[in-house]
Amino acid sequence: MVKTDLIIIGAGPTGLFTVFEAGLLKLKCHLIDALPQPGGQCSEIYPKKPIYDIPAFPEILAGDLVDNLMEQIKPFEPGFTLGERAETLAQQDDGSYIVTTNKGTEHHAPIVVIAGGLGSFEPRKPPIENIREFEDRGVAYMIKDPEVYRDKKVVIAGGGDSALDWAIYLADVASEVSLVHRRKEFRGALDSVEKASELAKLGKIKLFTEAEVKKLYGDEHLEAVVVKHNASDKGEVYVETDNFIPLFGLSPKLGPIGDWGLEIERNAIKVNNAKDYQTNLPGVFAIGDVNTYEGKLKLILSGFHEAAIMCQFAYKIINPDKRYVMKYTTVGGVTGFDGSKKEAKKEVVQRIA
Amino acid sequence: MVKTDLIIIGAGPTGLFTVFEAGLLKLKCHLIDALPQPGGQCSEIYPKKPIYDIPAFPEILAGDLVDNLMEQIKPFEPGFTLGERAETLAQQDDGSYIVTTNKGTEHHAPIVVIAGGLGSFEPRKPPIENIREFEDRGVAYMIKDPEVYRDKKVVIAGGGDSALDWAIYLADVASEVSLVHRRKEFRGALDSVEKASELAKLGKIKLFTEAEVKKLYGDEHLEAVVVKHNASDKGEVYVETDNFIPLFGLSPKLGPIGDWGLEIERNAIKVNNAKDYQTNLPGVFAIGDVNTYEGKLKLILSGFHEAAIMCQFAYKIINPDKRYVMKYTTVGGVTGFDGSKKEAKKEVVQRIA
Repeated sequence: MVKTDLIIIGAGPTGLFTVFEAGLLKLKCHLIDALPQPGGQCSEIYPKKPIYDIPAFPEILAGDLVDNLMEQIKPFEPGFTLGERAETLAQQDDGSYIVTTNKGTEHHAPIVVIAGGLGSFEPRKPPIENIREFEDRGVAYMIKDPEVYRDKKVVIAGGGDSALDWAIYLADVASEVSLVHRRKEFRGALDSVEKASELAKLGKIKLFTEAEVKKLYGDEHLEAVVVKHNASDKGEVYVETDNFIPLFGLSPKLGPIGDWGLEIERNAIKVNNAKDYQTNLPGVFAIGDVNTYEGKLKLILSGFHEAAIMCQFAYKIINPDKRYVMKYTTVGGVTGFDGSKKEAKKEVVQRIA
Repeated sequence: MVKTDLIIIGAGPTGLFTVFEAGLLKLKCHLIDALPQPGGQCSEIYPKKPIYDIPAFPEILAGDLVDNLMEQIKPFEPGFTLGERAETLAQQDDGSYIVTTNKGTEHHAPIVVIAGGLGSFEPRKPPIENIREFEDRGVAYMIKDPEVYRDKKVVIAGGGDSALDWAIYLADVASEVSLVHRRKEFRGALDSVEKASELAKLGKIKLFTEAEVKKLYGDEHLEAVVVKHNASDKGEVYVETDNFIPLFGLSPKLGPIGDWGLEIERNAIKVNNAKDYQTNLPGVFAIGDVNTYEGKLKLILSGFHEAAIMCQFAYKIINPDKRYVMKYTTVGGVTGFDGSKKEAKKEVVQRIA
């Protein structure tokens, strides 16, 4: 059982910055995220897209925003449970909570912070009859570790950046890469499209356009897929493969959190924005895109500020008898749990003649 | 008369970022600040100090934070009235406001945003009987343009960074620089203390320690000061000078804003944080360190978020019949009033083979 001060559900920018604000108050954090890496949408959906409305960054790539936050919170040594989805919330007799993931990992803390963004991003699955039978046996909807595919045959389906980029990457790793897309045209960054085009000409990516994977064959494990061309005169192709990876994007779902007894309004969690961003469950806070209140703006900036305020109230719940006096980091510096200390250069007091 | 959409009182980080959020909504801003440059405390008091709690900046110098914000808001062409203090607020028959400064400059807009930080920073003045007679006639409490002192005799009083740094700077500009401090030791950055020490040894700064300026002489303009040593046996020195600049720091005062009929609580302006950060006067908002509400944190981050929310409501006041649909900058880019356009690289849609 993981024990911590704050269980943070969601490791996007808001969840990550919460670690910093909690750390200044000497509170420890552990983050849970269904995605295999921290950063939420910024890492998974648009790492190379520029954001223009983060204060004091005229422009920053979403991936760099995440890298900066990871560096900023490093001194506060956050724990991570990644690739697992928070499934249940159980309040204990003493008011604390246990959060259990879909893989059974348990986390225990007095405070739960839901920073779940638009929810957990679930992959869109193609409507192939027996696809569920092959999940984790050749079929995957997300690539967590590309090394799994070394010297294997891989069929990727999709026509966007994700499909293009992984086809390009795996062309050097897998023994054979096929890319299946139901249209003629791909939609992606110019350089990805050009690179994929080049690899297709060299025969390093086998291309099937205006085509879809319709059937899966195999015994214990996937052995082949049937690719059907849209034009009836071109018929079907039987492609031997070890893996089939449909990359049709992710769609956000509030998911199991919706069943935790929280007050939900327009698919978001209602919080008290006049005070502490607490939900109707005591000790459970919701911050960032996952919450709602009058005038709510779904900006990364909003999550940052909500995190700062929320942590002050979490501190009071955990330390009901202590009075915390906020010190500016410019004055007091930042002392990490790892023993590190960052602070402004000290002034000297001395004679000059 | 300056006409604009939002009059922003205070050009610190919060006021500056308001220009960006307003700009996204196509609202024009004009800032008023008593200090001679934008940036508020960050520029005036601690430009070289690191800040550690701005999201996604593990460390940033206060001066760099201001530079970044100035770059970020450039496309929205803010106007500035600097070195003047907002003195009066007068509501017009149509509900709009005129803000007039201590120098008589008038500004007219439907919305007023008070982002005044801890108030206007007033210089601490030494208790010298006739000092007010020489204000603007040889006595100044702040250096706006050092060229004013070229080839003049200058006496600086003070023992901190500001006194040290200006004495060092003016040693190359003025014909004579004296530095008067009532203690033996100076308190400042190590390199400033060392540099001042060196210049004192070379005779380029005349040093009077354990001494204070006690009297001022002159007819139309300052002609001399009397420096009195604390130790009685050392007596007084008559120093001819054109200028006397006591640099004893700044202390914040809410100032004239306190008389505008706003609801004040603990020296800050009460706002509705559950909604829009509006004050008790319709169309007058207060954001950043100058406002107060339950759970308020006086962080730069708070001002940034309050600005974002406040601008949405200002938009509704100015455009009661339009419905604004927020577009993410990552999707819609940023279009400046200067015709500039920043946006993410467009995806291409094309065949790859």
